[in-house]
Amino acid sequence: MNSYIENLNWRYATKKFDTNKKVSHQDLELLKDVIQLSASSYGLQPYKVLLIEDKETRKKLQVAAWGQSQITESSHLFVFANNTNFNDSHIDTYIQNVSKTRNLNIEDLKGYADFMKSKISPLTSQAKENWTAKQSYIALGNLLSAAAFLKIDACPMEGFEADAINKILDLEKAGFKTTFLVTIGYRSKDDQTQHYPKVRTPKTELFTTI
Amino acid sequence: MNSYIENLNWRYATKKFDTNKKVSHQDLELLKDVIQLSASSYGLQPYKVLLIEDKETRKKLQVAAWGQSQITESSHLFVFANNTNFNDSHIDTYIQNVSKTRNLNIEDLKGYADFMKSKISPLTSQAKENWTAKQSYIALGNLLSAAAFLKIDACPMEGFEADAINKILDLEKAGFKTTFLVTIGYRSKDDQTQHYPKVRTPKTELFTTI
Repeated sequence: MNSYIENLNWRYATKKFDTNKKVSHQDLELLKDVIQLSASSYGLQPYKVLLIEDKETRKKLQVAAWGQSQITESSHLFVFANNTNFNDSHIDTYIQNVSKTRNLNIEDLKGYADFMKSKISPLTSQAKENWTAKQSYIALGNLLSAAAFLKIDACPMEGFEADAINKILDLEKAGFKTTFLVTIGYRSKDDQTQHYPKVRTPKTELFTTI
Repeated sequence: MNSYIENLNWRYATKKFDTNKKVSHQDLELLKDVIQLSASSYGLQPYKVLLIEDKETRKKLQVAAWGQSQITESSHLFVFANNTNFNDSHIDTYIQNVSKTRNLNIEDLKGYADFMKSKISPLTSQAKENWTAKQSYIALGNLLSAAAFLKIDACPMEGFEADAINKILDLEKAGFKTTFLVTIGYRSKDDQTQHYPKVRTPKTELFTTI
């Protein structure tokens, strides 16, 4: 376990990437596995993940992300997008997946489907959007830890004009909105921020035992 | 890295814990370190974590959490609570921590403080609450992975009456709201759900490469 803690101490929000180093195809697939295996409410995974390789698209996204250099200089860019129109049909699709994966009859899963629908359907659109967005942040926490495990650097980003990115990636028509961006790659030796001591709330303040 | 993926496949939302097994003090401190080291927007960690050991409190929380057995039968219960009243004073406290940790003058951090304030202050109360809640979900993703690394079982929970839990733990007066619960411990051999194949959206559907 010490290695897990060491990896968390090793990681930092990378400000400058080494433009000569690329994440390998194999490692990229592992990180995609990690995202896919992340927990979510009921296992519904109400989001999708865009991997932006096209250079022109990355340049456009950079403008929408306050010009941050990581958008174009990192090895890879993930855009997480949460579902803005989650409805019963998504639950039906999920139940079909459960039926297939676990070799169960759809009819025997009706009670489970109805339970989920009864909990999710009554939520307001805004509450549903918040809930789908939150689920994607679980995957973010997992992704950052896994990247550190692989000694791959990352910078998660919330600093961008969401409307502009939604437009560039044509997300809204498909029922999604940009949640956050994650750039990954390898830190440049010139990134001074890698040497800054990590700032954290003391455990005595962060935790309360009752 | 294969071990990381294996751990993610090993973990599942535990429905029934072995009431005879307790997470050691040492492992609990490691999990608290993991939560503390989790990434958050600007590093602000706008949430706190309650560790509920008191049995009577756990019984009350169980009633507010749809009677789920894990609340009382797990080894330990974490309640994550996000800040509902995030304001400039939190940023000032953070800046004091940065100053102390990195041995920098407060005055030299004013530009950084003002930048954060300019981004966060204009948000509506609701937007701020959503933002603080999302940050705690990054810690959740990290916690679940770390627990699996230690072969500690966990069940994250969003199924509860938030108002009731806020009241039991007197959270609102302190400027917090319950975000989610996490029970940890060791799976009971009687928990049949541990044998269910994991259901996940196929990578070909979850990911799009542009």
